[in-house]
Amino acid sequence: MTSTADDPVTLMNTALEQLIPRAHQMGVEFVEMRPGFVRARVPFEGNGNHFGVVYAGVTFTVAEVLGGAIHFATFDVSTHYPLVKSLSIDFLAPGKGPLSASASLSEDEIARIKAAAAPGVKVPFVLEAEVVGEDGTLVARTRGDYQLRPFGR
Amino acid sequence: MTSTADDPVTLMNTALEQLIPRAHQMGVEFVEMRPGFVRARVPFEGNGNHFGVVYAGVTFTVAEVLGGAIHFATFDVSTHYPLVKSLSIDFLAPGKGPLSASASLSEDEIARIKAAAAPGVKVPFVLEAEVVGEDGTLVARTRGDYQLRPFGR
Repeated sequence: MTSTADDPVTLMNTALEQLIPRAHQMGVEFVEMRPGFVRARVPFEGNGNHFGVVYAGVTFTVAEVLGGAIHFATFDVSTHYPLVKSLSIDFLAPGKGPLSASASLSEDEIARIKAAAAPGVKVPFVLEAEVVGEDGTLVARTRGDYQLRPFGR
Repeated sequence: MTSTADDPVTLMNTALEQLIPRAHQMGVEFVEMRPGFVRARVPFEGNGNHFGVVYAGVTFTVAEVLGGAIHFATFDVSTHYPLVKSLSIDFLAPGKGPLSASASLSEDEIARIKAAAAPGVKVPFVLEAEVVGEDGTLVARTRGDYQLRPFGR
């Protein structure tokens, strides 16, 4: 995969250090971003707990940041920003190494959100993510309620 | 409040750096621990995001660690350990400063869990937490499904 200074993955990884310093410090890194699909990963190092598995708050984070990333990859960042309203996470298996989280929005859902995103309107959308280990083990599943919000008032 | 080397708050704070280094790095600190009640806090510094509010993953963490703390304060740590199975979090207001999270278990619920905690038995319990700002604003509410698990097999 080639990467230039203005591709969305590079831009978003550069931005993350400023946007969410604590997530950057965990080593969260975006690896795939295109309209309707995003993927991020996080290393094991520094993120383990006393059971030798990735700490729950880190697993939460690598999945939660996908809301901002899919917004950046899919919608108009000059007029709207995303906000997480609630998130539920099911821990399904211990994360014993680096984790990868991915989430997608269907073309129909993207069209619905874009059509609804009039000035002054908050548009709710649901983003479900899967967090997997290097061997494909499903470590966690999340369901987040986000809002696409217009800038200003 | 006086604090000695062997009080549970001091012990738990000393342990956190080893147990969950990433939570310690966020500045998560336990401030009250007694059977059936625990409280932790986290500073704003280093934990903000680009909106100037505490990042969601930090709010999650200061609430989630209460599961381990209430176990330590309430149950037998020599025979059982706690495990989080799922957690849902509602973000109700922006956290614009340091946050404090608290959770409690009723005497009846403690009695139920202790009675059920036979060797070889996993005992599910629910822990609800509230995360508030310094002015008492309710910033987030969590509901976690935990298990009290016996060591060994």
